[in-house]
Amino acid sequence: MGNNSFGEIFKITTFGESHGTALGVVIDGCPAGLEIDLEFINDELGRRRPGQSSIVTQRKEPDQALILSGVFEGKSIGTPIAILIENKNQKSKDYSHIASKFRPSHADYTYHSKFGIRDFRGGGRSSARETVARVAAGAIAKLLLKKWKVFITAYVSSVGEVKWEGVLDEINKKNIEKNPVRCPDLPTASKMEELIKFVRKKGDTIGGIVTCIVENVPVGIGEPVFNKLHADLAKAMMGINAAKGFEYGSGFAGTKMLGSEHNDPFVIKDNQVITSSNHSGGIQGGISNGMPIYFNIAFKPVATIMQNQESLNENFENVNVEGKGRHDPCVLPRAVPIVEAMTSLVIVDHILRNKSSKL
Amino acid sequence: MGNNSFGEIFKITTFGESHGTALGVVIDGCPAGLEIDLEFINDELGRRRPGQSSIVTQRKEPDQALILSGVFEGKSIGTPIAILIENKNQKSKDYSHIASKFRPSHADYTYHSKFGIRDFRGGGRSSARETVARVAAGAIAKLLLKKWKVFITAYVSSVGEVKWEGVLDEINKKNIEKNPVRCPDLPTASKMEELIKFVRKKGDTIGGIVTCIVENVPVGIGEPVFNKLHADLAKAMMGINAAKGFEYGSGFAGTKMLGSEHNDPFVIKDNQVITSSNHSGGIQGGISNGMPIYFNIAFKPVATIMQNQESLNENFENVNVEGKGRHDPCVLPRAVPIVEAMTSLVIVDHILRNKSSKL
Amino acid sequence: MGNNSFGEIFKITTFGESHGTALGVVIDGCPAGLEIDLEFINDELGRRRPGQSSIVTQRKEPDQALILSGVFEGKSIGTPIAILIENKNQKSKDYSHIASKFRPSHADYTYHSKFGIRDFRGGGRSSARETVARVAAGAIAKLLLKKWKVFITAYVSSVGEVKWEGVLDEINKKNIEKNPVRCPDLPTASKMEELIKFVRKKGDTIGGIVTCIVENVPVGIGEPVFNKLHADLAKAMMGINAAKGFEYGSGFAGTKMLGSEHNDPFVIKDNQVITSSNHSGGIQGGISNGMPIYFNIAFKPVATIMQNQESLNENFENVNVEGKGRHDPCVLPRAVPIVEAMTSLVIVDHILRNKSSKL
Amino acid sequence: MGNNSFGEIFKITTFGESHGTALGVVIDGCPAGLEIDLEFINDELGRRRPGQSSIVTQRKEPDQALILSGVFEGKSIGTPIAILIENKNQKSKDYSHIASKFRPSHADYTYHSKFGIRDFRGGGRSSARETVARVAAGAIAKLLLKKWKVFITAYVSSVGEVKWEGVLDEINKKNIEKNPVRCPDLPTASKMEELIKFVRKKGDTIGGIVTCIVENVPVGIGEPVFNKLHADLAKAMMGINAAKGFEYGSGFAGTKMLGSEHNDPFVIKDNQVITSSNHSGGIQGGISNGMPIYFNIAFKPVATIMQNQESLNENFENVNVEGKGRHDPCVLPRAVPIVEAMTSLVIVDHILRNKSSKL
Repeated sequence: MGNNSFGEIFKITTFGESHGTALGVVIDGCPAGLEIDLEFINDELGRRRPGQSSIVTQRKEPDQALILSGVFEGKSIGTPIAILIENKNQKSKDYSHIASKFRPSHADYTYHSKFGIRDFRGGGRSSARETVARVAAGAIAKLLLKKWKVFITAYVSSVGEVKWEGVLDEINKKNIEKNPVRCPDLPTASKMEELIKFVRKKGDTIGGIVTCIVENVPVGIGEPVFNKLHADLAKAMMGINAAKGFEYGSGFAGTKMLGSEHNDPFVIKDNQVITSSNHSGGIQGGISNGMPIYFNIAFKPVATIMQNQESLNENFENVNVEGKGRHDPCVLPRAVPIVEAMTSLVIVDHILRNKSSKL
Repeated sequence: MGNNSFGEIFKITTFGESHGTALGVVIDGCPAGLEIDLEFINDELGRRRPGQSSIVTQRKEPDQALILSGVFEGKSIGTPIAILIENKNQKSKDYSHIASKFRPSHADYTYHSKFGIRDFRGGGRSSARETVARVAAGAIAKLLLKKWKVFITAYVSSVGEVKWEGVLDEINKKNIEKNPVRCPDLPTASKMEELIKFVRKKGDTIGGIVTCIVENVPVGIGEPVFNKLHADLAKAMMGINAAKGFEYGSGFAGTKMLGSEHNDPFVIKDNQVITSSNHSGGIQGGISNGMPIYFNIAFKPVATIMQNQESLNENFENVNVEGKGRHDPCVLPRAVPIVEAMTSLVIVDHILRNKSSKL
Repeated sequence: MGNNSFGEIFKITTFGESHGTALGVVIDGCPAGLEIDLEFINDELGRRRPGQSSIVTQRKEPDQALILSGVFEGKSIGTPIAILIENKNQKSKDYSHIASKFRPSHADYTYHSKFGIRDFRGGGRSSARETVARVAAGAIAKLLLKKWKVFITAYVSSVGEVKWEGVLDEINKKNIEKNPVRCPDLPTASKMEELIKFVRKKGDTIGGIVTCIVENVPVGIGEPVFNKLHADLAKAMMGINAAKGFEYGSGFAGTKMLGSEHNDPFVIKDNQVITSSNHSGGIQGGISNGMPIYFNIAFKPVATIMQNQESLNENFENVNVEGKGRHDPCVLPRAVPIVEAMTSLVIVDHILRNKSSKL
Repeated sequence: MGNNSFGEIFKITTFGESHGTALGVVIDGCPAGLEIDLEFINDELGRRRPGQSSIVTQRKEPDQALILSGVFEGKSIGTPIAILIENKNQKSKDYSHIASKFRPSHADYTYHSKFGIRDFRGGGRSSARETVARVAAGAIAKLLLKKWKVFITAYVSSVGEVKWEGVLDEINKKNIEKNPVRCPDLPTASKMEELIKFVRKKGDTIGGIVTCIVENVPVGIGEPVFNKLHADLAKAMMGINAAKGFEYGSGFAGTKMLGSEHNDPFVIKDNQVITSSNHSGGIQGGISNGMPIYFNIAFKPVATIMQNQESLNENFENVNVEGKGRHDPCVLPRAVPIVEAMTSLVIVDHILRNKSSKL
């Protein structure tokens, strides 16, 4: 089974708790001969890192990837690539006030019930800190995608009620990393930033949506029936902390359309088969058709708020949960590299899986 | 890998094309000693069957489950349960007009590209007929859930713009099977039925949303990180033909809420831990908390319309695709038992997986 | 998990009990475009079939493969290939005398203990009849291997104390199917046949060894560490009914050799890398080196003897188990096609797995 | 797939090269609540360690397990347990003389062919040093088995022609760790030790057999068909470096027996079902019957000899491979804890798998 594994051929297994010794990932199935660019991996970790701007948590986690195996003279050698990220700035004393309490809408109660024991420090393995291992693995997958010229771009398309209604084809990708919210439209980004700051001042949090686009995907990846490409993307995205919804192509809005409007006509352009509209979101029957793949992921507001809340403890007594510590008022900006990482893992895996589709 | 398998411990493998000899499923991992109620399995197939009402396709597929193995003297014996559903009413001549054409928004082009060859009759394996095998397997899973007193209810909550905004706690479940649309609110059901008939008259199709509720789920099922209970539900739902989106609990609407509104307070009621609101949708940190699990699945309008469409053939020439045959103007009513089946498979599998969570 | 599945990319799932409606297999992951030769599949079933000669069981099982899916216009189409073999000649009344008894060295007691219920007719799923599904799947794998020019040859190398000490390079393969024992040396075959007839006359049974050679395997298949090519072959062989041992290359005899004798020197011959001896059995570090792979499988004497035996029943009372029915006095001749089938499955799977080993 | 993973529910993934930064293992699926005894883990590593006696390699690898995750306040918490063993004493300069040469009967040529690149230092991942991660994981499995009162004992039963023909029931287990060869019979152990020293003096190496016994296994573990308990044991054992053969129960000797001799009669003793003989080796139909499980593993002589050998290099030119470095003249003594570790992993996994066998 592998409860902490993801992927089939390009398969990762992650480990680690928020306040343990280290987090890490073992990547099994990376083809040999890939140049492993450590700086790129660390750059990706930097994009996920707390403290990178004024609107995210001010905790300091100067995450550095330590490659333990699978790389020799700068290249992958076909054996498992293990990457370690040490926990250097974890202050366990911060968490004594919640050791036996169930924080509302956190995983404290469910972990306690499932396992009978839990590492309460910073949420243990349920902490979003766990995603650092996914970003490290995703960076390796991105190096493969670079070779194959597949491009993944994620950005924040809404925060609370502030939504950017841009057209996919007209996104200014260069803007995304130029603002702390990671929205490609700078005026909208400013409004989002303001909203996040306003919410934070109240000791509250807010949700939003990340959009992701995958371009130049080879035709034919994804498997019919259960392992449709969008089904695996859905699982990958819903496995990210705080995710509440997923839609691809026309998504929920497509439920209101007529078939005659929704169908994407096939046409030839520059000697290639394309569709003149793309409500299918680049996937038909679970298999890529070569058009851009795009999807949205809904994220709820962070459960940790800087307000007092009523709850229960492990003896099922009423207790007060204090709001303190350094936390994100909005996960959206930091979710962007995580969405990209998980997307990379799915695409790479399906490209490799497709190698056996025909004689 | 198992491209046509689903589940880990309670694992199914399906096979079959729309116009082949038979469709079927092998269920591996069903605990021994379960009474197998063949009539119940056939009833479930009947709910999925075409021709059951005036608003679904009028094809006749009098599906009957034939159990080939794994059952002895009426009970499961721990070996694989193979179930066959023969294709009795398939008229292959109906499909000659599309043998070499790519129907818009179907899987013709992607299957052709991926495999280099395809069974064009009725869409082959990409046909929704494939779901008959899932419903048969889901019926076995439902028999287990009955024993464990877990209850699954799915219904149509919107068709096009016609939406029922009911409160989950107040659903009149008995109404669902009393109307051809499978909406629990009879006045709304009538409006939906009218809309479907109107759309069909135009030779068009329409999408909608199915909502599913799972009650009395044991606390603690679902796995942290990648195999969160909602991530596996998302994959299961997105694997159903025509699915475009998934959301659970507060879903996309939750992105607009503040953390202070969204958090679900833990309280004691009747000596049990519950939450006084349920934006979490019964799942926290990927693990069930005992509250009702609920989620929505968006379905696009059926791609087969009774209108002429421009497209391409296998030689990449422009061709006309005629609209003919017997097809659903709206998949929603027949999607309901399929959603329930896939949900049953996920819940049963996670209940079995959870047996090793602690000493 | 998939308790009844075998393989990773080329993955099979079998089902069926000895006296149920049918046995069968679903083959998932066969590349599209392979010509499926039904006659060849049936020929392979014929080689495994009872009643084919005077020294095997005289039961009649005229097994015919019925392909239900995955094949269109004579070719595989990339979807699961389901094959059914109906049980036509099963006489359940034959087994009433053992319904509640545990036959010595059969699986009756262990199935009873594990599942709490069992299909006692002919041993249910523990019957060697189950292997008919493996042979059908193996035939598909062999069709792939034919395309890739990989050759698999199994034969009986010993029966009881009668052993053929031939040199691998000098085997007369044409002889194998010319005698009922399937030994490539005709004088030895005669002695084996005599021994089997002698043993049968006493109502007894006898074991023996099957040897298998795989030629022209591409260099580089097999995975380091746990999934070494010989480890997967060992598992495949030990999964065959009555198998008690496996050795490859120098095997148990190699334990008595010195390293200086055992090491296989690399040399160039006809511009190819070969080894001048082959104690490695074509596999080094778990990976094929291009030399012939060869291995032995030990089979115990069949547990069903035509003699009365003391045993226990389900109430743990002493009972007498009568010896009656039609059974093989020696499984070896019929084990040959089963060994070839399982070998084919392993080799095909590893060739497909190896497609992602390097960029 | 997970080429570097082993097990289904209790699943391990190992990583690391002989001369990389570290080796390690991630254990996924260990039930929560198990006391993790770090000293015991290190003791097990010590049993595998080089330099522990005069007849094994004199390299110094003072291996210490570093637990990175999955343990909190001394107990497993249900999340992955990652264990690291740093490489502290690796001298890469020792290996420059073989950087581009294919050592006979090593994995150099096959890794080179498969991956196009390899870490030549000490054999990289093909080195037996990789087994340190298995022993660490096996120690965790052993802690579970201790709780369940299942006992595993492995020992050296032959070295070259020196064989101990003891009866399983009469083994003096206390003797095993009292002599450097790990043979339970001290006079035989002395002869083996002498033989190993003699062989080492000649710069040569020698093979042998390890026997393993598992006592008090619960009845009913193991899965019918492909995942028989002995099939999984065979795969586990054949995955150990230098393994060439596996047999359980009567093994290869059983091929010469008659069914009437080989069958194990069921009898009642102390109110328990036992068999009065145990040729079945504790497993019938792939499922444990409660009797002791026993099996033999053949190990070839170590490929690294202290003699010059002719071979090829990466340019396929004839080269001389010098014999130098510190290596084991016989792997048998150090194979004992590795055999126990792999056995523990199989047994624990199957005990957990069996939790879903019946309602």
